[in-house]
Order: sequence, then C-alpha cells, then structure tokens
Amino acid sequence: MNGKIGTLDAARAAKQASFALAASEARVRNAALLAVADALEARREAIFAANASDLAEAGTQGLGAPALKRLRFDADKLADVCAGLRALAAMEEPIGKEQLRTELAEGLVLSRVACPIGVIGVIFESRPDALVQIAGLCLKSGNAVLLKGGREAMSSNRALFDVLKAASEAAGVPEGWAALLTTREEVGDMLALDAYIDLIIPRGSNAFVRYIMDHSRIPVLGHSDGVCHVYLDAVHDAQMAARVTVDAKTQYPAACNAVETLLVHKDAAAKALPIVAGALHVAGVKIRADARARALMPGIPCACAQEDDWQAEYLDMVIAVRIVDSLEEAVAHINRYGSHHTDCIITEDAQAAARFCALVDSAGVYHNCSTRFADGYRYGFGAEVGIATGKLHARGPMGLEGLCSYKYILEGHGDIVADFAGKKRAFTHKRLR
Amino acid sequence: MNGKIGTLDAARAAKQASFALAASEARVRNAALLAVADALEARREAIFAANASDLAEAGTQGLGAPALKRLRFDADKLADVCAGLRALAAMEEPIGKEQLRTELAEGLVLSRVACPIGVIGVIFESRPDALVQIAGLCLKSGNAVLLKGGREAMSSNRALFDVLKAASEAAGVPEGWAALLTTREEVGDMLALDAYIDLIIPRGSNAFVRYIMDHSRIPVLGHSDGVCHVYLDAVHDAQMAARVTVDAKTQYPAACNAVETLLVHKDAAAKALPIVAGALHVAGVKIRADARARALMPGIPCACAQEDDWQAEYLDMVIAVRIVDSLEEAVAHINRYGSHHTDCIITEDAQAAARFCALVDSAGVYHNCSTRFADGYRYGFGAEVGIATGKLHARGPMGLEGLCSYKYILEGHGDIVADFAGKKRAFTHKRLR
Repeated sequence: MNGKIGTLDAARAAKQASFALAASEARVRNAALLAVADALEARREAIFAANASDLAEAGTQGLGAPALKRLRFDADKLADVCAGLRALAAMEEPIGKEQLRTELAEGLVLSRVACPIGVIGVIFESRPDALVQIAGLCLKSGNAVLLKGGREAMSSNRALFDVLKAASEAAGVPEGWAALLTTREEVGDMLALDAYIDLIIPRGSNAFVRYIMDHSRIPVLGHSDGVCHVYLDAVHDAQMAARVTVDAKTQYPAACNAVETLLVHKDAAAKALPIVAGALHVAGVKIRADARARALMPGIPCACAQEDDWQAEYLDMVIAVRIVDSLEEAVAHINRYGSHHTDCIITEDAQAAARFCALVDSAGVYHNCSTRFADGYRYGFGAEVGIATGKLHARGPMGLEGLCSYKYILEGHGDIVADFAGKKRAFTHKRLR
Repeated sequence: MNGKIGTLDAARAAKQASFALAASEARVRNAALLAVADALEARREAIFAANASDLAEAGTQGLGAPALKRLRFDADKLADVCAGLRALAAMEEPIGKEQLRTELAEGLVLSRVACPIGVIGVIFESRPDALVQIAGLCLKSGNAVLLKGGREAMSSNRALFDVLKAASEAAGVPEGWAALLTTREEVGDMLALDAYIDLIIPRGSNAFVRYIMDHSRIPVLGHSDGVCHVYLDAVHDAQMAARVTVDAKTQYPAACNAVETLLVHKDAAAKALPIVAGALHVAGVKIRADARARALMPGIPCACAQEDDWQAEYLDMVIAVRIVDSLEEAVAHINRYGSHHTDCIITEDAQAAARFCALVDSAGVYHNCSTRFADGYRYGFGAEVGIATGKLHARGPMGLEGLCSYKYILEGHGDIVADFAGKKRAFTHKRLR
C-alpha cells in the first residue's frame, strides 16, 4: 500500500463493504470461512515459502529463539488456524440475535438486535497465525477489518492475506472487506481515519498500546498493562497457594495474565510465606519483598521491594511480595496499583471470596485458581481478538460478542408521538422477551 | 467547590466510594432512593425558594420563555421526580445479574455478572429535574457520580443536591458517592481526571459535546449531532407518510430525534410530495428541496437545498427534501450525511423495510413510525442518562443497563493452567446458563 492515500482508500473501501457485510447472510460468511480454510491448505507451499523467507531475514537480524518460534508458520500452525476457521463457521450466528423485545404500545414493537460494529483496525504482533484468527473472528461477526501485522512477518502476512482475501471474496463476501497494512506509517494514518474506522484493537507492548490510546479519536479496546495479583487471605491452604502462585507466575511469565504481585494477610504470613515463597524460589523466581515479608522468610534469598515494584509488570521470573493487614488493605492495594486485568484470592472463607470479588475493580476476579486462565480460548469463546481492561463495551477476553454492537428496530403502523403527548394513546411497555 | 483541588478531591472521594457502592446491597440503594424522595418532599419549600431565586436571576438576564420553562422546578416537577425515584427503587436490581455461566473444566466455573462502571461524570443542561433523575439512575446502578448542571440552575441544583446527598448518605450510601460541580472550570478539571472518572456523559449543544469528546482520555458516551431522516420508499401510504413526517418534524423540533431530512423514492415522489410537503407547509415548516423535488411541488413555497443542508441539524421548523433513485441511494445518503441516531423508512414493502433496517448504520432504525420515539422513557427504560450514537458499549437511549459493566468471576479449587497445557486435564466448556 502506498502511504496516506493507500490507507485512506483501504479504510473507505472497508467502510463501504461494512454496510453490505452487516446485511449479509450467515450462510455466505460461514461458507467463506470454510473456503478460506480450504484455500490456505491448497496454497500451503507458497505460504511456507513466504514464512521461510521471513525466518531467514529474522535470523540475519539476530532475533531470539522465542521470537523466531512465534514467527514460525508450519504445518502444525496451519492445521490450527484451519481448524479454528472451521470451528468459527460452525459457531452460533452472532448477528441479528434478538436481545430484547418490548411492545411500547398496541401495534408498536421495539426490538434490539446484535449487529456488527463496522470497521475494526487491528494491530497485532509478529505471529502470522494471529492474522488468520483475527480476520476469521471479524468475518464471522460481519465486520470489515484493517490488519496491521508485525514487520518481521511481512511476507508471511502477505501470503496469508492474499489467500484470505481471494477466497473470501470469491465466496461472496463484499470486496474490500479486509485490507493489509504493512508499514508503521500506515498505523499513524489509521489513527486519523475516525470517519471510517469504528474501533481499534492494538496488541503489543505497553508503551505502544498507550501511544495508540493517546493519539486517536477512534475508540480503542485493549490493555496496556497486565499487573495481576494473587492475595493469600487469613485462612487458606498454603499448598494450594504455592501451586496456584507458581503456575500464575511461571507457566508463561511474558503473558499479560501472569501474576506480578503476591499479597499475604499478616495472620497467614508466618505459615504461608516459607511454603509459597519457597516454591517460587525453587521454580527459579526472583523475589522482591517488603520488610515484614523478608523477616518471615530468612532462608529465602530476596531483594527489598521499592514503591516502584507495586506497579511493575515484570513479564519475567520476578515477583513482588507484600504483607497486608486485612482483606480491605489487599483490595485497596489492588485497586490502586493494579491494572484491572485479573486478580485472585486464595481462601477457604467463601464470604471473604465473595467480598473480594465484589470489591476488586478488575475484568477478572478469581477464587482459588491461576490468573493464567484469563484467555478467550480457555473461557470457551473459541478465540479472542484481545483482552480489554476498560469498563465500557467488552471487558476481559474479547471474542465474537465483543465485536458486536446492537441497534434498536421499531416497527409501527404510522404511530406518532403527538398521540401519546396528547393522551390519546398510552404506552403499555409489555415485555415480549 | 474551589477550583482544581476541589474537583480532584471530589473525584477521589467518588472513586473511593465507588468500590463500596459496587459491593453494596440493593436493599440499601433502594431505601436511599425512597429516602431521597421523602426528603425532597419534606424540603419542598426551601427547594422552591432556591428555584425562585434562579428564575428571578434568569429573568433579569432576559432568558426566553422556553428556557424559563425548563428552569422552573414547581410542585408538578417535584411530584414527577419523586415518582421517578420511587419507580427506580421498585425496578429490578441491575447489579450482580448473571449473564453467563460456563463450566470450564470439572470444578472450575466461570460466570459473568453485571457490575457498576464506577464513577460517572454527567454534564447536563439547565433542567434541575435532570439532576435528580441522573443521580437516581446512578445510585440504582451502584455508580458514584459527579454532577455538573447549568449555571442558570445553580441555586436550584445546590438545594436539590444537598437534600439528595444528606438523605442518601443517612440511608447508608458511602459518603462522597455524589458531588456537585458548579463552574465551567471544573468541567475542564474533570476531563483530566482519567485516573478517577470512568465515563463522561455530556448533554448539551453539539459544539460542547464535540469539545468534550476531543479533550479527554476518559471515554465519552453521547451524541453531538442528531441528523435524523425519514425515507419514503417506492410503495408507501402517503397519508401515513405525511402524518409521521409532520410529527417527526414538529412535535418538538429542538429535540435531537426530530427529523431533519426527508428522502423520497423517485417512483413515489410525484404522488407523495404534494401530500407530505403540503402537510409540512401547513404545519408551518420551511422546506429546502433539491431541484427534482421542487419541480414536483409547484404550489408549495420552498428554497433550493445546498450541499450543506444534507448535514444540517436545524433543530427548528425547517426540513431538507431530496429525491433518490433507489432504496440503496437513500441508505447511502443516510450513512454518509446522517449522525447514526434514528432513521425511518415509510413503506408497505416488508422486504424493503428489513433491508433498510439491516443496511442503515444507526442506533435506531424505524419502520412506519415517528423518529420522536427515540427516548429512554418511551422505550420503557424508566428514564435515560443520554442517547449514544457511537457503536461501543451502549447505543441509543441509555438507561440502567448502559450504566453497567460486567466482570468475570472464576471459582476453582486450586486449578492451574499447567495441567491443561500438559494434557493432564481437558476443558469441558459446558454452558450452565
């Protein structure tokens, strides 16, 4: 695409396509999802070749092993994305679902039905499989999409996108419904196109997401930080606490739903800390604790936590530890320093759990389980386009439902407001559904 | 309140109160709504006196009759707002409602429950009754609120607010849950407090709402323009069209849901225009039509419409008229020039109506009824805090549901993700609700 004009043209075309897409039949969108899966399989060699060229280029640039692993698009990844597309095709139709039906007055019926949002701009990381997953979710939910992938995956993304576009449009999806942006400049262009783009979903580093949020009038859904907590309450099973905390910290430390701070009730600390911090230490986690906590685990190496540690997203094998005097203090700490992502209480006390869940202002509030469960696939949504930590529209992992808006449809027979203002007619407000 | 520090203190206190409010019992909030109604009635004389002083001041400033009418808070208005508060208290509890329940795996259950958004900043016009209505909706939905009313209503708002705050806090609502801002500077202060305020709902002139949207990182819900359309399709009942269009234009021309542009299918224009435009003319509406339309209504005085007219929100007894060649052209006009508020098709053809409703990208899509029905009270929501024309979160009239977010609660027994990654356990994803 060629700079500003290319982005503008793509956004305009996407907007145009979005109206027809919103009115398209489920049958057409589902057939297109299957056709894309078939076409990706048929074109596998060309796609693998494009990916090999990205990998070779990344190798010369000295990309690390984890980054290369994310970039790789092999037979397993292909099988995964195709299975994902076919699963999406089989899922319940999200568009047109009636959410409410009310008789306002005799012969005047209001309904509220789900509809697509319109045009979604998604900026995603270097995993080429993310392109197919995100485009699939948008297609299923009737949204047009502008896709901007990582620079390292440029050839892979281009190969995947070309197949996706050709196969979906051949299956009857309105032309221009999807576009691929490839340069960083195009991201800047996109942020200014609020006349055409309805929502931006940025995935990537904190600083990047925050930049996007600050530089566009277009609504943004996502999360910049993932500062998640595990709180060990006064009465809890320390073995369970160790097991859950180690999983939440170490199962994938670079994930946004990994735990960063462990809070421990003062009454449970003497017993719990040696066990839980001990298990973390054995698992290779570096500990940064406040003075009260350090005093309770003399045998375990740990650094002294500073104020900065309470808001740090380490994304690494490091955890901050703090003693609190009460559940209320734990909640206050989480609501103040956390990022409203996912926070967990470990307790045997059901009332304390309920209180924690009501008071903590986060997308996910957990009781006795790892924060790592915060994910669209694990929640049963099929897949996710991102995780939102704001409180408007979708919150938490965003699947198909998060890609939908709704509209009110009012069916009448010549009804006018003057008749109601003049008391000739009265509202019945009868709930029909 | 005293400038920046006053606003900051109020926002901080509101945030603090919002956590406890989110965990408060329905019983307490409902009792508070009733207590406020009782207290307003008990303090009626002081409130009327404050309103009389606002009215006297407004009189000396030369405010017009409609503005004075909006400002007046008399026994009828008091009865209305108290009835509204009591009706709210009797309404179904919005908080804690379970929206989804899934067994992720044996013994690991995910639920999604409605919760308050947190702290809402509402900037409203000069009707003192709006203060009580908005505060009532926020209280019922467990939200803290910063209220900024019109300058003309300052004494009335202060009198109402003082009663509201005292009565609600005495009934057990957390202190500081509501605050009254009184100066324009405080609005500016508010826009910067994204650490404490979760949502701003501005009501007022287009320019003002747009200013708010452009000058805050806080999400804003509302509408700047209300450019609504009535489209007369190829086959329609011209008498019904006249009746609906006259109502949509004249029943309250200053409302955002009043029609501004009339589109007419070319095949129906010769018959319909003399009848519909004739009725508009008789009702006192000035007509600005394109050349094709003017040629079809020689007896009716009308000006020549310019490009500007298609996006004009007259808020007055003026309407723009245009001939279109097809339903698709009408839809394209509405999606291009409209404000995605409320648009109506008048047709006898059910298929055309369905197509119009699917293709038009507006919060309200109507068939054979007046656009003036777009309103929270008429929709049966009890009341509204505003009408949103964006597509994220609430769309259309916003009642209690629009003031709610949700959170995911995950209940486990020490469950960890490593067990699933290692295939020791499998997800069941059993829908329990």
